[in-house]
Amino acid sequence: MAEEKKRTEINELGEFGLIDHLTQHFKIQNPSSLKGVGDDAAVIDNGSHLTVVSTDLLVEGIHFDLMYFPLKHLGYKSIVVNLSDIYAMNAQPKQVTVSIAISNRFSVEALDEIYEGMRLACEHYGVDLVGGDTTSSLKGLIISVTAIGQGEKDKLTYRNGTKPGDLLCVTGDLGASYLGLQILEREKKLYLENPGIQPELEDQQYIIGRFLKPEARKDMVEIFEKANLVPTAMIDVSDGISSDLMHICKQSGVGAIIEETGIPIHNDTKMLALKFQLNPVTCALNGGEDYELLFTIDPKDLDKLRVLPDIYIMGEITEASEGLKLHTSGGKRHDLTAQGWKHF
Amino acid sequence: MAEEKKRTEINELGEFGLIDHLTQHFKIQNPSSLKGVGDDAAVIDNGSHLTVVSTDLLVEGIHFDLMYFPLKHLGYKSIVVNLSDIYAMNAQPKQVTVSIAISNRFSVEALDEIYEGMRLACEHYGVDLVGGDTTSSLKGLIISVTAIGQGEKDKLTYRNGTKPGDLLCVTGDLGASYLGLQILEREKKLYLENPGIQPELEDQQYIIGRFLKPEARKDMVEIFEKANLVPTAMIDVSDGISSDLMHICKQSGVGAIIEETGIPIHNDTKMLALKFQLNPVTCALNGGEDYELLFTIDPKDLDKLRVLPDIYIMGEITEASEGLKLHTSGGKRHDLTAQGWKHF
Repeated sequence: MAEEKKRTEINELGEFGLIDHLTQHFKIQNPSSLKGVGDDAAVIDNGSHLTVVSTDLLVEGIHFDLMYFPLKHLGYKSIVVNLSDIYAMNAQPKQVTVSIAISNRFSVEALDEIYEGMRLACEHYGVDLVGGDTTSSLKGLIISVTAIGQGEKDKLTYRNGTKPGDLLCVTGDLGASYLGLQILEREKKLYLENPGIQPELEDQQYIIGRFLKPEARKDMVEIFEKANLVPTAMIDVSDGISSDLMHICKQSGVGAIIEETGIPIHNDTKMLALKFQLNPVTCALNGGEDYELLFTIDPKDLDKLRVLPDIYIMGEITEASEGLKLHTSGGKRHDLTAQGWKHF
Repeated sequence: MAEEKKRTEINELGEFGLIDHLTQHFKIQNPSSLKGVGDDAAVIDNGSHLTVVSTDLLVEGIHFDLMYFPLKHLGYKSIVVNLSDIYAMNAQPKQVTVSIAISNRFSVEALDEIYEGMRLACEHYGVDLVGGDTTSSLKGLIISVTAIGQGEKDKLTYRNGTKPGDLLCVTGDLGASYLGLQILEREKKLYLENPGIQPELEDQQYIIGRFLKPEARKDMVEIFEKANLVPTAMIDVSDGISSDLMHICKQSGVGAIIEETGIPIHNDTKMLALKFQLNPVTCALNGGEDYELLFTIDPKDLDKLRVLPDIYIMGEITEASEGLKLHTSGGKRHDLTAQGWKHF
């Protein structure tokens, strides 16, 4: 390796600071490159419509633990998380490429399980596996998925399009995936301490399913289309809404306020959070991996929104100077801090 | 991990057998997915022209050794090898996405070196970095690059379009990259045995450069365009022409014969091969990582070809029943066996 004069640790910059830092000197050269680094997906103008591209890298031991993550679910989820980024652009995924690196600890049958999960996801979402790369790793399993979708110029939804007064909405419910992970981590710990033990999972199907087999909100993009509703900004909930909302606010140059009473939380999530002595609202705000859609709409579209299923108005976009706030059910205003997943 | 009834080792199938095996149950669902797994790149019909997508996963310890691979060169090469796949479709790369996983052994400055190399490649080839993912790894550096290009329907060149009687051609020269790797491996070994030693690299700039800083043949795609020449089949030389030609023959349902005297080998390559007691022709056939273009043309295009620079007619396409043969300068016919890089 080259001699280094200065050593800056990666965690000094943080994940998003690091991406900004690394990509700051790259200049766009092709007029077809409409949107580069900094949204859920890149956008390429191909003349007739827009091509939307999103990519993720999943590393064993960082993003998943094979002690409790069934290989088929892993394959399924690795596709879904990428499709979710395409839906978050209000676009339709059409193709995926999959690259995988594996150590010789994996058999062909183990790989078959992963690809079977991928196949099920491709079928369910109507996307085609069109390419990839298969190679070996010295250690562990690495999966890289790129999703390619199609969108229309006047319907694509970026992170930077909202303004003060817009309504802040979210689909589905939040926090369950994070608790699913907590259950599995607890059972893993118990199992490692006492390998004879039987896992206690049976009564938490919903919660665990949200973590092990999340779905992307393809249905919502179709619902928006039918309702002729175009969100002003949108992102999928991967790091937790605190963090994901921060991206929208930063890129749109706005602030936001979330009403605590407006945060959709499943009953099972509430019950289980209390059992784990966690605050359900904190799980919902910072848990992440929900793969719901967090979006904003112009208030004049409120009538269109009202009749749509599974969407919750959670707050409002404000001036940037007001920052990101949580309006608690007790009537107080707290600063929201983005925690998200810390990988570094 | 799930209980496994049967365990098949991955090397029983080989890399290409494995890809076929894993992807056999995936069905194409979108009419826009023109070409899936099995060529240099996937092809997507977007209405006005074709989008071409290629992806590679590079793993430290498998694809590169940081003891002798400077980080800037690694960044450069990781982009170039992907662009090469797009050029091999007779298309123009326009965008790339880069995902990278790193352990905390890497500093921001080390990453800066990698991205500086990537930036130089993007600038040189006129492509835009439009997205990606940055995450941590438990161990080592992992780079996943996806290149996206544009092609025209009647000019895109697949692996399956050649027929008996076509001429087999290659650009540039072969085998140097493999010898570059041999030098670096030798110097690494010497250094590990005696860390005080100075590496002897100065007189082998061409050879080492072919390995550490390969270029993709953007120029050739432009030359084909100007000459109004469309190859009948094309692939880039990544695994070695024996292996790469096998892909063309398998997918086109043909055989081929290579004239030993027609294989372009640089003088430095010949000299160094002899010094290493290697057969230069074997290096050229099986070395790989040359990133030249191996292609076939209809003999009626011979007059167009004759005036083009840096292209060598190396043999001919034959009936499938004749297999893959090498016609040696001694007048004998040998079976060609694809060796390529063995990662598993």
